[in-house]
Amino acid sequence: MTEVLVDGRPTDCIPADDRGLLYGDLLFETIAFVDGHAPLWSWHWRRLCAGCERLGLAAPSESELLEDCRKLAGGDRCVVRATVTRGSGGRAYEPPVEPACRRIVQRRPWPSAVDRFRQGGMRLVTSPVRLASTSPIAGMKHGNRLEQVLAARDCAGQGGDEALIYDAQGRLVEAIASNLIVVLGARALTPATDSAGVSGVGLAWLREQAGIVLETAELTAVHVAGADEIMVINSVAGIRPVTAVDDHRFAIGLTCRAWQRLWSEELRI
Amino acid sequence: MTEVLVDGRPTDCIPADDRGLLYGDLLFETIAFVDGHAPLWSWHWRRLCAGCERLGLAAPSESELLEDCRKLAGGDRCVVRATVTRGSGGRAYEPPVEPACRRIVQRRPWPSAVDRFRQGGMRLVTSPVRLASTSPIAGMKHGNRLEQVLAARDCAGQGGDEALIYDAQGRLVEAIASNLIVVLGARALTPATDSAGVSGVGLAWLREQAGIVLETAELTAVHVAGADEIMVINSVAGIRPVTAVDDHRFAIGLTCRAWQRLWSEELRI
Repeated sequence: MTEVLVDGRPTDCIPADDRGLLYGDLLFETIAFVDGHAPLWSWHWRRLCAGCERLGLAAPSESELLEDCRKLAGGDRCVVRATVTRGSGGRAYEPPVEPACRRIVQRRPWPSAVDRFRQGGMRLVTSPVRLASTSPIAGMKHGNRLEQVLAARDCAGQGGDEALIYDAQGRLVEAIASNLIVVLGARALTPATDSAGVSGVGLAWLREQAGIVLETAELTAVHVAGADEIMVINSVAGIRPVTAVDDHRFAIGLTCRAWQRLWSEELRI
Repeated sequence: MTEVLVDGRPTDCIPADDRGLLYGDLLFETIAFVDGHAPLWSWHWRRLCAGCERLGLAAPSESELLEDCRKLAGGDRCVVRATVTRGSGGRAYEPPVEPACRRIVQRRPWPSAVDRFRQGGMRLVTSPVRLASTSPIAGMKHGNRLEQVLAARDCAGQGGDEALIYDAQGRLVEAIASNLIVVLGARALTPATDSAGVSGVGLAWLREQAGIVLETAELTAVHVAGADEIMVINSVAGIRPVTAVDDHRFAIGLTCRAWQRLWSEELRI
């Protein structure tokens, strides 16, 4: 079965001079497909276009990109990574004036642990990796993900299911591959992503489509320690309760269960 | 002529699942070759090994990597980019426990403007891109270079030869593809690279081999405005005087000319 399409053509390889490889000069979306359909497509597409605008990339044709994704997804429950690189050329860091962007679409199996994490929750560790702050590329899902690689490597070593990541100033940012929601009494809080982190599609859906009020707030370890509930959310794995952060245990709350139900009933992913 | 070797084999492409492409999970060195010889090889090799240690990558064999570089360089004056990626595999951001790193060696022509810039100096602009600070990957020459791409794109738009880049706190960090030296009276100052920026091979040579005392200091626009001389330095283009930053002009100083002479006489690049 074809697993990769580059500009619509089945292949296993990309040119060695692609700027995505050379400089991480790319954007990507990791998209859940079920029965040939991506329930969150319009949110992914919007974030991709916003990123293209910020980076000066020409967005691909939406219909061509979606067609590539559907071809690879077939009718299965699976994950498709859609990448847009700035293609080849330019003078070192300086991009070509009119880059011929390259679209790379890759299929991945559905992550096997998702159902278990949704039901039983995730045990988080605190990452020793502190994300860079005041980043000019914060919020985007770009190809510069070495911080997440380092955090994931440490997390696996610690035996965590996921990790809480702070910046060097002690501000909570995100989990490795998910956004965070901290419930404190009647408030649901999530960190800003204008200094570090990724502006999440799952969070956007929860706010816009499910009508949930999520306050953006500066959060620290004090908020984590005092939280009534903590959840992690991304567009593929959905909402999962956090049952522990290091040695501190958390109960799975009613809010989490209610939002999970909204997610599964509305999105069916 | 062969322009790319991947793990020693001539090819134009790399696997689409390489983690260097997916996440910028790689390190690289951009190395000047003259007459089949890389005068700064040992400094490049040392920085690459230090980066591998920090990222948990297995360094390639030095002799194999150097052999690949020499094959592509031939006897010409040219530039070779040597890249070490974490290869394929792992679970999303989480790297494989024992990654099979991939070495990618690419040849590039000698940059045509180097001699002109060395002789006549460079006109710099101030970049509107502010580098992220307190970065856990600062100092390394890694594949997460989107900030530099954005700065280079803006610099070309402004018509600058290079750009001064600050962080969001107003601290001077580096130029787009060079380190900075600011001469103030009898002191030569260079910004630290422990929060942002790349620890430069050219700077290391100047300190260690030429015996030049370069103080690491926190520098701001005030230091730039009051500088007696400003220079940019990297391992390929060497030392170049800065003749202007935006509308502020600088004379080419005696210190710069003396250090350029050391560079050319010792290194012959």
